[in-house]
Amino acid sequence: MNRDQALAIVKEQLTEHRFLHTIGVMETAIKLAEKYGADEKKAELAAIFHDYAKFRPKDEMKEIIISNGMPVELLDYNSELWHAPVGAYLAEKEAGINDSEVLDAIRYHTSGRTGMTLLEKVIYLADYIEPGRHFPGVEEVRELAESSLGKALIKSVQNTIMFLVKKGQPVFPATFHTYNDLLMKTED
Amino acid sequence: MNRDQALAIVKEQLTEHRFLHTIGVMETAIKLAEKYGADEKKAELAAIFHDYAKFRPKDEMKEIIISNGMPVELLDYNSELWHAPVGAYLAEKEAGINDSEVLDAIRYHTSGRTGMTLLEKVIYLADYIEPGRHFPGVEEVRELAESSLGKALIKSVQNTIMFLVKKGQPVFPATFHTYNDLLMKTED
Repeated sequence: MNRDQALAIVKEQLTEHRFLHTIGVMETAIKLAEKYGADEKKAELAAIFHDYAKFRPKDEMKEIIISNGMPVELLDYNSELWHAPVGAYLAEKEAGINDSEVLDAIRYHTSGRTGMTLLEKVIYLADYIEPGRHFPGVEEVRELAESSLGKALIKSVQNTIMFLVKKGQPVFPATFHTYNDLLMKTED
Repeated sequence: MNRDQALAIVKEQLTEHRFLHTIGVMETAIKLAEKYGADEKKAELAAIFHDYAKFRPKDEMKEIIISNGMPVELLDYNSELWHAPVGAYLAEKEAGINDSEVLDAIRYHTSGRTGMTLLEKVIYLADYIEPGRHFPGVEEVRELAESSLGKALIKSVQNTIMFLVKKGQPVFPATFHTYNDLLMKTED
């Protein structure tokens, strides 16, 4: 599947705003992949499909999570987390993507996970810093991304946790574990 | 063991500053226990012994953690966490305290845990708000403690996580789980 074919499939699933975000993530992911040595074609494909399930009805996502053995604890946390694993599932089922690295990058782009691959880090970070993103702290992460993928990633996860904890909202355990894992492993 | 006997045992183990802190925790814990219906005598005893192991050498604490089947992941996190489970162990072994509720309140007074008992909450919170504590946010927690043990506890755990994450320090998983658990269960 080439870029235009992939974009055409995804465009059907998204609002215009979200499609523009996806283009931003794609362009950012390709740059990060080039800079840090990830596979650029895989980064492109994962970025294009990362929000594939974003606008599926909650009931459908819930059903997919339960029926396919995904972690049911997802259902106890913010539904914003659901589209990532559901997106990986649907990208394979509906769009025929079967590269497990690409699917994992889609699957973990919101929560992160311990032992993230280079490609997963690229997609997570690209989603956070693409040019359409405007929120407190994003500029600092963009600057860090110029010199260290690891430090940029840690800062983005820090910001996410701080944002949620400050508001007194639950934090999905995988995100906490990602934070600790990155801190303990990142040296660059 | 009466209060004076307990205090005499603990005083041998602590600096003067830490002993005064212990007195503050004891007085606060008794008040909280009275207010929220916990056992006042158990609260008194747990408070007196909560920092019993605070000044044990790190090597000794490490050895106790390993030899007694305590979670070895403790060793990957800040050694400030170690004195709590080690304190529970030594309070039993050296001071003969064998009330499991009291020992658990000592054991979990730093990390918290999911499913904290009323007594554990009282000791955790008393340690956070005793009159000798002076740090940003403590006054807000003191005020919350006047009307809601649960809300005060959540705020104290929020503050602790924010403090660590802001500095980019790892957070012991039990503390994250405590945070989520309290959020999901606390209604008062």
